[in-house]
Amino acid sequence: MVINALAPNGGTGEFSYSKNSYFQKESLGVEESKIEEEIEKKLDVKALASASNMTIRIADFGCATGPNTLVNAHKVLEAMKEKYKRQCPNTEAKPEYHVFFNDLPSNDFNTFFTSLPEDRSCFACGVPGSFYNRLFPHSCIHFACSSLALHFLSKSPEVLQEKKSPAWNKGRIHHTGASKEVVDAYANQFAEDVGKFLDARAMELVPGGMLVIVMPGVPHGMPYSDVINGMLFDCMGSILIDLSKEGVFDESKIDSFNFPYYASSPEEMRKVVERNGRFNIERMELTNPVPWLKNIEKVIPDWIIHVRVVMEAIFSRHFGNEVTHQMFQRLTKHLLDKVGILETKYRDKIQLLAVLQKKE
Amino acid sequence: MVINALAPNGGTGEFSYSKNSYFQKESLGVEESKIEEEIEKKLDVKALASASNMTIRIADFGCATGPNTLVNAHKVLEAMKEKYKRQCPNTEAKPEYHVFFNDLPSNDFNTFFTSLPEDRSCFACGVPGSFYNRLFPHSCIHFACSSLALHFLSKSPEVLQEKKSPAWNKGRIHHTGASKEVVDAYANQFAEDVGKFLDARAMELVPGGMLVIVMPGVPHGMPYSDVINGMLFDCMGSILIDLSKEGVFDESKIDSFNFPYYASSPEEMRKVVERNGRFNIERMELTNPVPWLKNIEKVIPDWIIHVRVVMEAIFSRHFGNEVTHQMFQRLTKHLLDKVGILETKYRDKIQLLAVLQKKE
Repeated sequence: MVINALAPNGGTGEFSYSKNSYFQKESLGVEESKIEEEIEKKLDVKALASASNMTIRIADFGCATGPNTLVNAHKVLEAMKEKYKRQCPNTEAKPEYHVFFNDLPSNDFNTFFTSLPEDRSCFACGVPGSFYNRLFPHSCIHFACSSLALHFLSKSPEVLQEKKSPAWNKGRIHHTGASKEVVDAYANQFAEDVGKFLDARAMELVPGGMLVIVMPGVPHGMPYSDVINGMLFDCMGSILIDLSKEGVFDESKIDSFNFPYYASSPEEMRKVVERNGRFNIERMELTNPVPWLKNIEKVIPDWIIHVRVVMEAIFSRHFGNEVTHQMFQRLTKHLLDKVGILETKYRDKIQLLAVLQKKE
Repeated sequence: MVINALAPNGGTGEFSYSKNSYFQKESLGVEESKIEEEIEKKLDVKALASASNMTIRIADFGCATGPNTLVNAHKVLEAMKEKYKRQCPNTEAKPEYHVFFNDLPSNDFNTFFTSLPEDRSCFACGVPGSFYNRLFPHSCIHFACSSLALHFLSKSPEVLQEKKSPAWNKGRIHHTGASKEVVDAYANQFAEDVGKFLDARAMELVPGGMLVIVMPGVPHGMPYSDVINGMLFDCMGSILIDLSKEGVFDESKIDSFNFPYYASSPEEMRKVVERNGRFNIERMELTNPVPWLKNIEKVIPDWIIHVRVVMEAIFSRHFGNEVTHQMFQRLTKHLLDKVGILETKYRDKIQLLAVLQKKE
């Protein structure tokens, strides 16, 4: 399987993910209490631990360089410990926790590993590889999560580059505002990718194990141009066209680039899960974006840095570092000029939460 | 526990471990057939797999950036697969293999992860942390090895820096040629460190699991100045004294530095294992150094690069990059001048192989 995605920026510098991911932290914070509730209600920690030599294994798919993944893992750990304590109030024996942090081999695991707290109540591993493939032995993971990572497709659909195809995505870098054929090509790639993700996780999770997905969402049928991130891709595309018209590079480079990003509706995600057939759907809903999105004018510069640290590697590989740098430099002003329109794009319900449980 | 050791040089450049570790590969090659023989004779792969949901877990303690660790893991995997096939010739079901590569958090896991072959017959993880501490849950590892890593002490003994102590190691950077008190301080640190290593591994290995240690060895009672590596430390020390006399740094910096390196005799290792009490000793022997050591004059330049990529970080932290660089620059000439003496230091039996099996 071709994996064309690239990990977020490494290191701890100005444009590093580790220093610029607090908006993501807030977005994930919205889901915290819901995930804790699911663990408390539905995860039989006692049974899972005793069937597994008293070791509970937790995997995070798409960990980047931290620190959000550590906060998440900590919350999940605490919820599981609480549940176990409630299930076994009088026993001295406690499960041990083994936490696996996965991301692409291009991820900066060095930065992540040196940021791990020394005094941690679990054993930690890094797992390099694409989560669209198998990463663990059969039936060994008890709790899996993927936070703000599954919207990165494994690749952009080839058909978008075929000049004779009705899905040729000329002059755009994303499906936002494009023809139905282009949107469908993205949707198909997403269904295929998440299908592979679920096939792999279905092999890796124990029966009764839980899989939590948090990713950008969109209400069913809503054009992506109605959403703030859609407008972001539109602006990036038009800045790149400006740059190509200034002679910095040939416009055909835009035609051959399609950013591998897809926000899913609950209905689409439900369909892929049902096709897989190995998971019960415990929760599938759109949640509200976090408050920072409401003060969009104030946060634009920070927001663009957050976008940059996640997307830069993919742009740079195609357009080179200089063009990518110029695009991001112009992006903030471009969006500030359009802040009136941007404010109309604020929507509730644009984050997708799926809580699945592996069937017995 | 204070861990002062540092990982070998990262990256893939001129002075990287990944490009300069083929002597180590040859040294490990000497042990290959013996380890395969032990697996074939004593590791009950069938029983281990069936008690563990058909997943075999292998851990390498001190993996560096590859590629030697991958060669080792591959050989061990093949031997275990062969054994299983012999034990279960008519069964379709096969164990899956989960391989854990451990090194210090300062190790360049990024280089290691991007060098992992895509098409591998096992699942791979990186485990950042000191192997003198616990790194895995209770009773989960079936085969563990540590190749050319355990001679790095967790720290240099503090007593070596105490001016009033008989173990004050003035004017030297190692115990080679030093007083009995200095040698004893190193020996005690080694016994304490390996004791902690074995305590941790005894918790992590399943009953019947195997632990293989390969490290620099020395015949019982032989002064380390009789061995090539001893002469290496002597030469490094005298170059540093030259540099300090040239005014590059104050000589007291040498008094406060003691390289945390210890080669063990089989007798010493046996004592530590017996004190731990949780392992049977299946094999404990000194093996012959590989042929390259016999052509010492020819290989000196390469040998020094091999030494440098492993030891540089520890020297640099204390003496700074410039002094360390100058020391290694002078070392080759220094050793070539003494090639006559160096040749007399050639010894058989200066690598230690220990094969231990966790008691039932």
